[in-house]
Formats: sequence, C-alpha cells, structure tokens
Amino acid sequence: MASQELIRQLEETIENIPDFPIPGIQFKDISPIFLNPKLYEEVIRDLVAFSKGKVDAVCGIESRGYLFGIAIAVALDVPFILIRKKGKLPPPVVSEEYDLEYGSAAIETRKGQIKPGQKILIHDDLLATGGTTEAAAKLVQKQGAIPVQFSFLIGLKDLNGKDKLEKFNAEIYHTLEF
Amino acid sequence: MASQELIRQLEETIENIPDFPIPGIQFKDISPIFLNPKLYEEVIRDLVAFSKGKVDAVCGIESRGYLFGIAIAVALDVPFILIRKKGKLPPPVVSEEYDLEYGSAAIETRKGQIKPGQKILIHDDLLATGGTTEAAAKLVQKQGAIPVQFSFLIGLKDLNGKDKLEKFNAEIYHTLEF
Repeated sequence: MASQELIRQLEETIENIPDFPIPGIQFKDISPIFLNPKLYEEVIRDLVAFSKGKVDAVCGIESRGYLFGIAIAVALDVPFILIRKKGKLPPPVVSEEYDLEYGSAAIETRKGQIKPGQKILIHDDLLATGGTTEAAAKLVQKQGAIPVQFSFLIGLKDLNGKDKLEKFNAEIYHTLEF
Repeated sequence: MASQELIRQLEETIENIPDFPIPGIQFKDISPIFLNPKLYEEVIRDLVAFSKGKVDAVCGIESRGYLFGIAIAVALDVPFILIRKKGKLPPPVVSEEYDLEYGSAAIETRKGQIKPGQKILIHDDLLATGGTTEAAAKLVQKQGAIPVQFSFLIGLKDLNGKDKLEKFNAEIYHTLEF
C-alpha cells in the first residue's frame, strides 16, 4: 500500500484539467510525474510491491500503460507484452473487440507472446469505466493465460470500473483513488 | 557504441515482417525485445551511454518512444517529457505540424514542461524518413530549448532520415542500422 507521503506527492503533482476531453469531464494529467524521476521511481516501487512473486508476465495497455508497465516488468524480471490498438502490430495477432459509447474498438497482442498457463498482471495508468481493461483480460484468457492481477496508478471511484473486473476473480490495486 | 554481441542479439530478436503496414514495406517488429528484460536493460545501457552528462531532459515520441525513453531519462536522472499526437494532452499545449505522404499531422507537448535553454535528447524507437523527429526538434526549439541529441534503437539507412536532422547540428545515434 502506498505511503501517505507518496499519495500526498502524487496529489500535488497530478494536474486536474476541467472539461477535457469533453465538457463535464475532469481530466487527470499524470504527465508531470515523469518530470520527476525520483517520484516516478517511488511509484514503480509501489506498483512492484503489489505484484512481486505473483505473476509470470506483465501486459501493458498503449500508450500511457507503457510508461509504468515496462519498468514494473523489468523490476519483476518477467516479460512485458505490448497491448496495442488494432492495426498497429504486424500479423499474426490476437484481437479482442469492445464497445465504446459510440461504436466499438479492438486491442491486440502479437500471437505467441502470451503463453498458455501464464499468470498475468494487466497494467494501465488509469481505471475509468473498465472497458479497455476488461477487453485486455479477455484477450489474455483467449490465449489460455490467467489475468491474476490488475494494477493502475489511479482508480476513478465514481465510474465503477471495478464492477467490470469482478468476474475475473483477480487482485485489483491502484496507488491512489479519486 | 553497441557491442557486437548486443547487435547480434537484437538482430536475432527483432522480427522482419514483409508487406506491413503496406505492400512493399518490411516492418521491423521490436516487441520481442520487451519479452526479455535482460536484453531490454542492455539496450537501455547502450542508449544511456550515448547521452550521459550531455542533456538536461529527454523528450520521447508516442508510443514506442516511451518504452526506452522513460528508462533513459530515469537512468540519467533528468525529466522525461511526453510528446503526444495532437488532441491527447490537455491544454495548454505547444504544437508542431508536419507533412505526411497524404495530408498532415501534429505533435504536442504540454506547455511549460520544456524549459528555455535546456539541452534536450529527442528519443524514438526508429528513424525512418525523419519527419516526426524533425517536427519534435522544431517543437523543442519553439520553446527556447536546444535539441542537442537524437537517439533511436534502429536507423533505416535507405530512407535518409538523417538528412532531415542535419540542420539541427545535433549528435545522432542508433544502436543498430538496417
């Protein structure tokens, strides 16, 4: 669990931007964290502590999920698997579609990078409605692996993203909640 | 300069995908590097050696430029500044447009993250035609900072990306060349 000091520093650093990307939404800008390498390393230590000894590989969701995900995987000394938006990874790929408010989207991994039976951490910077994370977990299951953990820097509690992840019976962690 | 052993390992690991994303193009898939945390760390050591003591901040280009860029910045103990595609960062931003084969695109940083006078490393995974990297360097200059170094995992020599970067009088490095 994150120290009060880490949470205080993150709350001071993350910027709240009203009405972005659309009116009525308050955007959490995490980019100032990367200006402070010491703070970034504290975040990594916190996320690594949650997953240490528990997973065989980390899947990170493009693109902000890469910024913490790769460092978590390296610290755990396990493979890091890129989850990308449809069409960005070369064939062969495994895909999973999911619904957006209007229309649908798909995410992909390269075929063969996730191994059957692996215990997987799915990481992203932010848990909002949980739609993308749920699709990522299905993408992992489709390849015979087990999504045993989800981690996020931030969880937005009003959007109930955790409800969508309940069915996976996995551990869920976010360093801080708004 | 990268050791022959590192270059050999990378050549074995990077996959060549014919006719992706369009017929006639051979795609270099770097994603298998992230499956091997030890190899990833060797790449970081190589890229860090190029920039050590020479820059005040690192700019990484979305999204594969984040995978090495953040680790380079942390190892150098300097700020990491996200360069994102237009519309993804909240206001206020600084933008730079550039031409694509058909139409144009723009990249952005959040205003205030690059400081006037800073010596900047611009990092991306791949130097192809150099269009995006050139725009990144102009974006840095527009904010009163100096693009003193460019680094890439891969340089594609047939596409002459270096020609577009000559005018910045910066150091250019790629771990390997195809």
